[in-house]
Amino acid sequence: MTKTQALDLLYNKMEASRALGMASSIMHWDAATSGVPEKSLAARGAAMGWLGGESFKRFMAPDTLEAIEALESVSNELDEYESVMVREAGRGYRRTVAVPPEEFQAFCALTAEAQVVWEKAREKCDYEMILPYYEKVFDYQRRLSDWYGYDKHPYDALLDGYERGANVEMLDGFFSALRETIVPLLKKIVEKNSQPKEISGTFCIDTQRELMTWLTDFSTYDRERGKVGEVEHPFCTTVTPDDVRITTKYHKDNILSSVYSIIHECGHAVYEQNMGRDLIKYGLNECASMGMHESQSRLYENMIGRSRAFAERLLPKLREKFDFFKEWNEDMLYRAINIARPSLIRIEADELTYSLHIMIRYELEKSIITGDVKATDLPVLWADKYEELIGVRPETLDKGVLQDVHWSMGAVGYFPSYAVGTAYGAQLMNTIKKSIDVDAAVRKEDISPITGWLTENVHKYGAKLLPDELLKKATGEPFNPKYYVDYLSEKFTELYL
Amino acid sequence: MTKTQALDLLYNKMEASRALGMASSIMHWDAATSGVPEKSLAARGAAMGWLGGESFKRFMAPDTLEAIEALESVSNELDEYESVMVREAGRGYRRTVAVPPEEFQAFCALTAEAQVVWEKAREKCDYEMILPYYEKVFDYQRRLSDWYGYDKHPYDALLDGYERGANVEMLDGFFSALRETIVPLLKKIVEKNSQPKEISGTFCIDTQRELMTWLTDFSTYDRERGKVGEVEHPFCTTVTPDDVRITTKYHKDNILSSVYSIIHECGHAVYEQNMGRDLIKYGLNECASMGMHESQSRLYENMIGRSRAFAERLLPKLREKFDFFKEWNEDMLYRAINIARPSLIRIEADELTYSLHIMIRYELEKSIITGDVKATDLPVLWADKYEELIGVRPETLDKGVLQDVHWSMGAVGYFPSYAVGTAYGAQLMNTIKKSIDVDAAVRKEDISPITGWLTENVHKYGAKLLPDELLKKATGEPFNPKYYVDYLSEKFTELYL
Repeated sequence: MTKTQALDLLYNKMEASRALGMASSIMHWDAATSGVPEKSLAARGAAMGWLGGESFKRFMAPDTLEAIEALESVSNELDEYESVMVREAGRGYRRTVAVPPEEFQAFCALTAEAQVVWEKAREKCDYEMILPYYEKVFDYQRRLSDWYGYDKHPYDALLDGYERGANVEMLDGFFSALRETIVPLLKKIVEKNSQPKEISGTFCIDTQRELMTWLTDFSTYDRERGKVGEVEHPFCTTVTPDDVRITTKYHKDNILSSVYSIIHECGHAVYEQNMGRDLIKYGLNECASMGMHESQSRLYENMIGRSRAFAERLLPKLREKFDFFKEWNEDMLYRAINIARPSLIRIEADELTYSLHIMIRYELEKSIITGDVKATDLPVLWADKYEELIGVRPETLDKGVLQDVHWSMGAVGYFPSYAVGTAYGAQLMNTIKKSIDVDAAVRKEDISPITGWLTENVHKYGAKLLPDELLKKATGEPFNPKYYVDYLSEKFTELYL
Repeated sequence: MTKTQALDLLYNKMEASRALGMASSIMHWDAATSGVPEKSLAARGAAMGWLGGESFKRFMAPDTLEAIEALESVSNELDEYESVMVREAGRGYRRTVAVPPEEFQAFCALTAEAQVVWEKAREKCDYEMILPYYEKVFDYQRRLSDWYGYDKHPYDALLDGYERGANVEMLDGFFSALRETIVPLLKKIVEKNSQPKEISGTFCIDTQRELMTWLTDFSTYDRERGKVGEVEHPFCTTVTPDDVRITTKYHKDNILSSVYSIIHECGHAVYEQNMGRDLIKYGLNECASMGMHESQSRLYENMIGRSRAFAERLLPKLREKFDFFKEWNEDMLYRAINIARPSLIRIEADELTYSLHIMIRYELEKSIITGDVKATDLPVLWADKYEELIGVRPETLDKGVLQDVHWSMGAVGYFPSYAVGTAYGAQLMNTIKKSIDVDAAVRKEDISPITGWLTENVHKYGAKLLPDELLKKATGEPFNPKYYVDYLSEKFTELYL
């Protein structure tokens, strides 16, 4: 196969994958925003399975490997884009063939079943129901790390599947830095016992919808190149780089929920909308990693959206629309959007404690993969760790070890990317602040300089740079958890102590 | 190839076509109900083109023909389903390969451009703009009928592509029967000059939306197995047999428009929802023909929806919701939903005159294909025929020869199926009335016996029977235009003379 033939073959595969992916994302959007008739679920599932399978089959066809190998043999003749395309395709191909197909199929069947069982187990708080599934999932993951291979720690092979470059050495450092500072800080905040006044009332959903346009405009999400939908579990999905859709859910009794879910999804969407068009042909118009995606959503949501400057802009909007806020001032709002307190449920956790929830999962997964912890021990260990690190102990399993779907999905190694991503965000923000007056931009309701900086230093590269390459290029140093720890520590010390 | 191999190969092709078709119909729905960002049009178009092309390529691959031939050689061993699948696949394959690929490609490019030009030509009432395109389209269509082949008339080869079994002999008979009765009837109605009081006012769109649920329930459309959307140009689309979606458009100043577009689309949707699930595997869960689909929509819309009995049920709903109808009685409403008068625009034509609009197009197309008429003559001939048959002459081309998109799309032979379909509906209704008291069912607001009869005699067969086979089986005789002519004649004589 000549170089040109091999490149064309890969470009054709990318085109097919784009078309099939676009179909799948619109079908997903359609189901999430307006539901699927119950009786149509099976036929629709079969079709979506066919589309996904087709995409997989095309990529895993032997000619893909031939093309990759042909290009690897002329690697010095490839330009930057071609090199990364070949590197990523090769990695994806080889990780897939590393897994015996019959094992992979059995695992897919197992996790499909496990997710259904997990829902019931959580509802009934019955760990015995899910235990045999968890045992098989963890057993598979242990073998998976052997199939993938690793240098130092078996967990590394799994971590790298979600967050390129992440490993136990890096994460041990990251989480111990967090632990040293955030655990005692949280304790002090609890002891101080001076929680802000909470926002509690009933907020007309139609009025909340009016706020959406302001929030998306503020966040520099281009609604002309996307759509905004309403769903049960908010997400962002990319149909094309010029059709990036976000969703939210309005809660009558919780106005902050939709405000921050909108800003969060806008952070994801802005990343997708601003990726370089030069990447598309090579299939590199993807995020650099799960964590890098999360860095954008959390940077917009927390570092911008929960700042004092943003509280100053949000308050007049809220007062204009809701009588509830008549007597509120900026300081009250700033404090109300920054509640920090121990909690049991990860997805409801506040900015300060969120990473502690992740740390617990990280430590458990690490010991599970080495075999030091057994699936049967998890409920008690989970509760012990919550008590030790966050200061609360779950009384029921649905608020403890059974709260997350991830393990029943077979996603081991996924959790850390949430926390690492937030820390990427803090490191980026630290650099941004050297050249941009972020608070002034927020006060002017024009954060386009911030989005501009991120586009220039993060978004436009898509998957062309690995997370660590991006960070080095953008901030001048590799991943450094210090910025995140310092940010949390300064912000919440000032707020509470 | 063994019989089993050949069948499996075709089943696999059907499965792929189902999945790709489902993706395309959801993407179409998505665009029509909530728009596509302008800048995403090109990338989206490319992906939809890929999906459609993939479906086409898979079907037209050489192994499809091998399978068809293998099965044709053991035709006596095939069951009913297999036989029809092989017959239809063979027909589709051979009609496609009959066209030289470079001609087909040029024609696709031509019509893509022609549709854009047609929009502008219509806007400017400039026939010269579109004329060269029409000439090429008609030229291609003349050659197409040679490529396809025909026994008697070149137009037959085209007609059969839209309406299986339709040909000039049948349509000449059909349209002359219509002409003999309906043209003089319309004249008499015009002379009588006793048009009903019209419904004109402003009708709140939200209130119109409330009517939608009653209308769809009445029409036996199962909303639990579909969705209802709002679009610019209403349509019905099938995602799966249990996810059949309809759309409508509400007009503030025209309440009847949405009422009847909803019933019309429900007629289409009920057909799709009630097709036998046994057909899916064989790709036969399709309509028997365009005309048969239209027979269902028009039967529900006109024969049921514009009956006196329905007016009796609709009036209380309208009175309950709109003050406008306070002084109205059933007879006034029955007359108002059955206005019959000469008009220029096909898609706005009433029940009585609709087929006359089609007749004009049929006669013009027939003479174009034989070469007796040239594209350049069409504007004047069109106007002459409108004057002769309908009694009105278009003063501008947008209300004359430029009103329809069909010729710029290259769809020659399509129009007759609209009229033939309506006549199928009348023939079916004539049989239904022998065993079901249709008016009584409508008055009870329970037309499920009618839908039940249609399901048993039409819907459940999908494309397993040809239109004429269906009609014979359901009504005991082949297509007979008498029922349609009699129905129109009786109804409108009673109403107007």
